[in-house]
Amino acid sequence: MERTEQGVRLTLGEVRELASDTLSRHGLRADHVDAVVETIVAGERDRCASHGVYRLTNCVHTLKSGKVKPDADPRITPAAAAIVRVDADGGFAQRAFQIGAPLLVEKARANGIAALAINHCVHFAALWPEIEALTAQGLVAIACTPSHAWVAPAGGRKPLFGTNPIAFGWPRPDRDPFVFDFATSAVARGEIELHRRAGKAIPKGWTIDADGNATTDPEVGLAGALLTFGGHKGSALSAMIELIAGPLIGDLTSAESLAHDDGALASPYGGELVIAIDPAGFLGDAAAAHIARAEALFDGIEGQGARLPSTRRFAARRETPRDGVLIPTELYDALLAL
Amino acid sequence: MERTEQGVRLTLGEVRELASDTLSRHGLRADHVDAVVETIVAGERDRCASHGVYRLTNCVHTLKSGKVKPDADPRITPAAAAIVRVDADGGFAQRAFQIGAPLLVEKARANGIAALAINHCVHFAALWPEIEALTAQGLVAIACTPSHAWVAPAGGRKPLFGTNPIAFGWPRPDRDPFVFDFATSAVARGEIELHRRAGKAIPKGWTIDADGNATTDPEVGLAGALLTFGGHKGSALSAMIELIAGPLIGDLTSAESLAHDDGALASPYGGELVIAIDPAGFLGDAAAAHIARAEALFDGIEGQGARLPSTRRFAARRETPRDGVLIPTELYDALLAL
Repeated sequence: MERTEQGVRLTLGEVRELASDTLSRHGLRADHVDAVVETIVAGERDRCASHGVYRLTNCVHTLKSGKVKPDADPRITPAAAAIVRVDADGGFAQRAFQIGAPLLVEKARANGIAALAINHCVHFAALWPEIEALTAQGLVAIACTPSHAWVAPAGGRKPLFGTNPIAFGWPRPDRDPFVFDFATSAVARGEIELHRRAGKAIPKGWTIDADGNATTDPEVGLAGALLTFGGHKGSALSAMIELIAGPLIGDLTSAESLAHDDGALASPYGGELVIAIDPAGFLGDAAAAHIARAEALFDGIEGQGARLPSTRRFAARRETPRDGVLIPTELYDALLAL
Repeated sequence: MERTEQGVRLTLGEVRELASDTLSRHGLRADHVDAVVETIVAGERDRCASHGVYRLTNCVHTLKSGKVKPDADPRITPAAAAIVRVDADGGFAQRAFQIGAPLLVEKARANGIAALAINHCVHFAALWPEIEALTAQGLVAIACTPSHAWVAPAGGRKPLFGTNPIAFGWPRPDRDPFVFDFATSAVARGEIELHRRAGKAIPKGWTIDADGNATTDPEVGLAGALLTFGGHKGSALSAMIELIAGPLIGDLTSAESLAHDDGALASPYGGELVIAIDPAGFLGDAAAAHIARAEALFDGIEGQGARLPSTRRFAARRETPRDGVLIPTELYDALLAL
């Protein structure tokens, strides 16, 4: 740990210790601490600051508000041959994923495709750590989850959808996987919050006011509704995520999650859907050759100067084990004071 | 059939006859004719003119250019327990889907989730007829397919992706299903072509010129590249479709499809991926109650004046069996002359 003008420099080991101490101090059971800390450290390691130690304030708030069960006992519940269901028992999603993932991998390999539903979980993290756990096994993976109802459907004006992230991963031999993970809202809610604090206007297309009119005032936008990305197409995708990671798996929509929150401002509560596909299920022994063929697509993207998603994360991942990470001093002190 | 000032009025039966005669006359075998005609009639029935008899010109061109096998024998090939593979043998996708769909439904019901890969097929149609065949069985469905490389990745300037449609369906008890089906390009290529013919400028955001600059000139845009919808997020989704309906199933990317076309201007050739999910696989006997719970989401959308996707199609579907459809006179005469 080194305090500098730019902020507090920590090794990844110190990040792990900070996250672990903070969560343990607030009563989270050790197995959950370990699972949650993995995603926090991964966020810092990849210089994805919005999913690093910054999230600890939210985790602690959710713990304090009683909206997450600190000693939840996630368990696998009965489901069909290519389905895994994990009842998270009201705990953070991370531990439930750890418990369900090996069976998901097994079922994907046995059947070619399989789906994991995590039910009754609290969700605060990015989806890419889970996606990458599956691409590391040579599987193609898709994950999505509703959140809280902050986003209006295209053509509407009232919050109904969550920011509803969708993530995808594709294994690449001897390389970082192809991974994307994005909110189906035009922008993350935190981004608008940052503009509000800085007294800066937001671009048109991010939010609408309570009457459904475009606004560049972050305060007005937060009191109104976020918009989806990509107009009616993004809105349709967001509805799909509500459905397949909500009622399809017997869990809450974003509106139901916000009602459950009941003003606590805790992290969203509900379900998550993960689909895993084994290329060998389609292609048998020819799978490796076809997976390798996808490299021409990636070459076609990068060869014209466009970037693959997650490139910056993967680059940071090579640097931070050596260089450590820089945490804003204010945030670091706030975390110690929690 | 009635010629009017507005165009030629046909009953749906006459549409069926027109499509059937046209395709048969150009050598398409009867089983394929029947399958393809179903989708053409469905397009006209839903007043989705871009996927109605208009497509016959394209089908006939593809037949004449030798880029589709008129007497293809699609067959189911070996795959994993929750996977169905149909080798379309170079024929239109419709007949292959007919052959694979019953086994897809069976495998989805047996395993909770299943996937159908159609390989070596020629694709010219919307995906919603296939989606609706699955929602009619009470299944949730997702389908996607690459096309020809006409679309640049976000941050790039050269065509690499297809217009890559993705479609989704959700069964609703005693109602039309929730269905969307859209291109991941900003707009359909035909829309730009229509502007070109009319000598009209196109909006910014649809295309770029060969140097990657925005253009409102349809001619310049067609010679450059289409853009994806929704910036880098739409671009990421388009890449996902290239991968999961391409190499994952052992089939072509959009760039490979265009190379295969070799200037013939025929319909895209390659694969299609369809995922079917049985809610009972997650929820057993509780499935119906949870599926019904999704109605609150649809009420939340429509209750604020926003529209569900496909609403216009379903409305047309109630009218056209009685009122028939109106085909532009020029198109009708061109079809007769084919």
